Amino acid sequence: MKYILLIDTKDEKGLIYKISKVLFDNNVNIINEQEFVDNENSKFFYRSEISGEIDINSIRNALQNILPLANIKITKKETKNVVLLATKEAHALGDILIKQYSKDLDINIQCVIANRENLKALVERFDIPFYYINADDLDRIEHENKMIEVIEKYNPDLIVLAKFMRILTPNFVGKYPNKIINIHHSFLPAFIGANPYKQAYNRGVKIIGATAHFVNNDLDDGPIIEQDITRVNHEMSWEEMRNKGRDVEKNVLSRALKLALEDRIFVYGNKTIIL
Amino acid sequence: MKYILLIDTKDEKGLIYKISKVLFDNNVNIINEQEFVDNENSKFFYRSEISGEIDINSIRNALQNILPLANIKITKKETKNVVLLATKEAHALGDILIKQYSKDLDINIQCVIANRENLKALVERFDIPFYYINADDLDRIEHENKMIEVIEKYNPDLIVLAKFMRILTPNFVGKYPNKIINIHHSFLPAFIGANPYKQAYNRGVKIIGATAHFVNNDLDDGPIIEQDITRVNHEMSWEEMRNKGRDVEKNVLSRALKLALEDRIFVYGNKTIIL
Amino acid sequence: MKYILLIDTKDEKGLIYKISKVLFDNNVNIINEQEFVDNENSKFFYRSEISGEIDINSIRNALQNILPLANIKITKKETKNVVLLATKEAHALGDILIKQYSKDLDINIQCVIANRENLKALVERFDIPFYYINADDLDRIEHENKMIEVIEKYNPDLIVLAKFMRILTPNFVGKYPNKIINIHHSFLPAFIGANPYKQAYNRGVKIIGATAHFVNNDLDDGPIIEQDITRVNHEMSWEEMRNKGRDVEKNVLSRALKLALEDRIFVYGNKTIIL
Amino acid sequence: MKYILLIDTKDEKGLIYKISKVLFDNNVNIINEQEFVDNENSKFFYRSEISGEIDINSIRNALQNILPLANIKITKKETKNVVLLATKEAHALGDILIKQYSKDLDINIQCVIANRENLKALVERFDIPFYYINADDLDRIEHENKMIEVIEKYNPDLIVLAKFMRILTPNFVGKYPNKIINIHHSFLPAFIGANPYKQAYNRGVKIIGATAHFVNNDLDDGPIIEQDITRVNHEMSWEEMRNKGRDVEKNVLSRALKLALEDRIFVYGNKTIIL
Repeated sequence: MKYILLIDTKDEKGLIYKISKVLFDNNVNIINEQEFVDNENSKFFYRSEISGEIDINSIRNALQNILPLANIKITKKETKNVVLLATKEAHALGDILIKQYSKDLDINIQCVIANRENLKALVERFDIPFYYINADDLDRIEHENKMIEVIEKYNPDLIVLAKFMRILTPNFVGKYPNKIINIHHSFLPAFIGANPYKQAYNRGVKIIGATAHFVNNDLDDGPIIEQDITRVNHEMSWEEMRNKGRDVEKNVLSRALKLALEDRIFVYGNKTIIL
Repeated sequence: MKYILLIDTKDEKGLIYKISKVLFDNNVNIINEQEFVDNENSKFFYRSEISGEIDINSIRNALQNILPLANIKITKKETKNVVLLATKEAHALGDILIKQYSKDLDINIQCVIANRENLKALVERFDIPFYYINADDLDRIEHENKMIEVIEKYNPDLIVLAKFMRILTPNFVGKYPNKIINIHHSFLPAFIGANPYKQAYNRGVKIIGATAHFVNNDLDDGPIIEQDITRVNHEMSWEEMRNKGRDVEKNVLSRALKLALEDRIFVYGNKTIIL
Repeated sequence: MKYILLIDTKDEKGLIYKISKVLFDNNVNIINEQEFVDNENSKFFYRSEISGEIDINSIRNALQNILPLANIKITKKETKNVVLLATKEAHALGDILIKQYSKDLDINIQCVIANRENLKALVERFDIPFYYINADDLDRIEHENKMIEVIEKYNPDLIVLAKFMRILTPNFVGKYPNKIINIHHSFLPAFIGANPYKQAYNRGVKIIGATAHFVNNDLDDGPIIEQDITRVNHEMSWEEMRNKGRDVEKNVLSRALKLALEDRIFVYGNKTIIL
Repeated sequence: MKYILLIDTKDEKGLIYKISKVLFDNNVNIINEQEFVDNENSKFFYRSEISGEIDINSIRNALQNILPLANIKITKKETKNVVLLATKEAHALGDILIKQYSKDLDINIQCVIANRENLKALVERFDIPFYYINADDLDRIEHENKMIEVIEKYNPDLIVLAKFMRILTPNFVGKYPNKIINIHHSFLPAFIGANPYKQAYNRGVKIIGATAHFVNNDLDDGPIIEQDITRVNHEMSWEEMRNKGRDVEKNVLSRALKLALEDRIFVYGNKTIIL
């Protein structure tokens, strides 16, 4: 059995020594180990994959004893449960479906919830439950509560917005802190808001991008996990930019998702530390 | 109705004038137009999308009259038929399946032929015929001939090797000149041959790539259509390089395929001109 | 002698036919030729390099006769004169100095004007006049007018802001429409204004960039010529981002400058068409 | 005073614990710390920047006592001395000159040695000694020995081949193990040997690159430090590829050089570990 150990705390002298002593004294095998010190804010971040005949509770207690103020998390390294939210575009959703199918992502998609119906056939071909929750005659909170009702049944580790084209309110977001990953179809902070490809086309940029980020209460303003870009030129209409951008979107989303599935992301303030 | 006009010929003075005169005199509407002159080899390449009340034959004849030595091709702009060959990996194949499903590629996948059986379920979920043609007890030519038998039924415009992990002989390749597109999982001409990710790992490169090319008789040596790369580092095993490389492979393959579906590729010698 | 022919006009049927007929009838040799039609705005852009025993005026007249509303420009293909403006950073300026020295850019740097003195020694090592025009006790207009006085002596084809860290007013900008190229140290439109690297650091982006653009009256809002990016991560301070970004800045600026030196850029609205 | 501590050794349980205990017991302040375990080869690599009232010898002894088989190196963090070798191209050399001038690299260029004379004026403008050592009437060993004679006077930390276009024999290379950095103008292992841009042009690749590597006895086959690429297309002659590639070459070389100047590179077998 493998475990992932995550620690973040105020930086101080000797942290690595103290942590490694506990692990050594408990005969823990360290498979790999990463750390980062934010000297500006005096913060320490640590991640390791560990194995061995381990009593998780006693290790956690020993660590907490020597680091009383630290956030310490030890979890089994295992497949995470994920609920996907989508609207009508197939590319980001389809990429994750194929990656679960081919085991290129270590993921268990519990269900897909969408506010349009057209992706139902695709999702069901992969034997995954599809919930069509139409938003048309509902206010935002009512619609969100219907989705929350489904999500609560599954109790996922992560919620992934695979081109879910609706704004989520604090009613929804507040329930799942640092658990919701969105893909925004621009190189944030450029082109926040609606139709970023049209904005990019109108501005005449030579490069477009996509951004995967955790969702907090401000639209398109959460901690960025991953970004990437592709070149465009004057010959392309905004629809061609959108089509070219879709490959970037899905690649960025699946890379960010992989980092989250592997417990590699610390959120600190409005930033991510990736170990 | 839109048409695509492709011309390649020896370069000479006034070619554009002569071509545009024919089009103008025939009242053709030019939607867009690209040309390229290879001054080193004195070769002229031309592509345009045209429309209007057009008598294709009379235009072709008029062009051929003024350019008697040119290769002139006028085709309706329409969805092309494609046969996919695969082995066992789902990523490149799956990406094309999703892109047909979502209409992100203007393609008609006629069937998938594979020398392993594990992709059958995935393909059939998309209602596409799947032919399992086992190579185990056949020599190369026998196996190819069984595939050719299926392909001949469909008479595709293109054959795409979506991680088809067998070498094709002149017996097969000679039948489909400039019609077979392969994705090779390295940045050609680096790492020709078997397991390029392991080769890349052993060489300690900092970037890996993928190459889409037409298949000719020399292994991994055909005209290159498209390439792309991604960064790797000392922390990655060759399996992790392979997994990261798969996104590059599928992106490169689908970009090359799009160019072929849009009749944008001229093959000249061992190179491609992309208009 | 080679010439560059630039045409932009309202799109209409037969433009290429008409242009190529004039060139053919005048026995002009076309070395290469590019065109672009903006179908959305019905605009036509054309660039060619031509040679031969040419009477430029008669060709221009003949073209203007058949295209009475077009902008037509024919210029000798020759080294352009450039004035550089800088402040205190050496990387972008130094790159252009080295590229003139090594003939990697076909450029004649007439002089460098700076509002700090520290680059004087570097510039003079390359035998280029250096004008130190301190802004400290001047208002914006006074400072600009002192620079304009120098620039007028040289009458440059282009003015390049190689990290000139002051805002230019309409008083200056209005004198040199589409002649001033700036390098902004962010991936516009993200991080407009002061210290974009610090803004990028604070936002926690995973990629930073640089943008070369023509300067118009709105800060950082002119037509974009070229952009590029580089990856950053949580380990980097904003100073490290700035240092890594400098290579991107200078590369982007010199690529944009090369396009301008080769007369490849059309400005249309707030965009560039690059042929 | 800051120091850099480098350790590499066979991997075993508790290494981090043992190292961090020594540092903790000696009251060392760890500014940052990176480690890497090559699980395949069971090798451990460690780098940290440390400070404090430190007795370097006693720390080194204490570490060596607990890790008797490890390679342990502690050096002051200070500007390194570098000798540059060049032939006739100015771009890579010029970039390093400008970066020393602007302090974008923490480097002390002791001298430049070239087998052509044309770079003399450029180098001397930066007040750096230039040695013109003509190879014309000498055999390889004689020419190398003349260079070695100069190099020995300076006793540099690193030797950088900034487009030095001659092959070095074991006579030279053997004297400076893991101290010679070369920039090769291709994406190795593609296009080893002479004129890689022409090779790339002939092969019709869509991307070209550059590779910085340590030089060992096999041509273009040493441990790779850094690579990067840029896109090319059918319109470009091999000279245009070369010109576009030069920016990549100089960027890659200066990034690799920065890593070496910061003592971040471990060489292990034919690979580099970069911490």
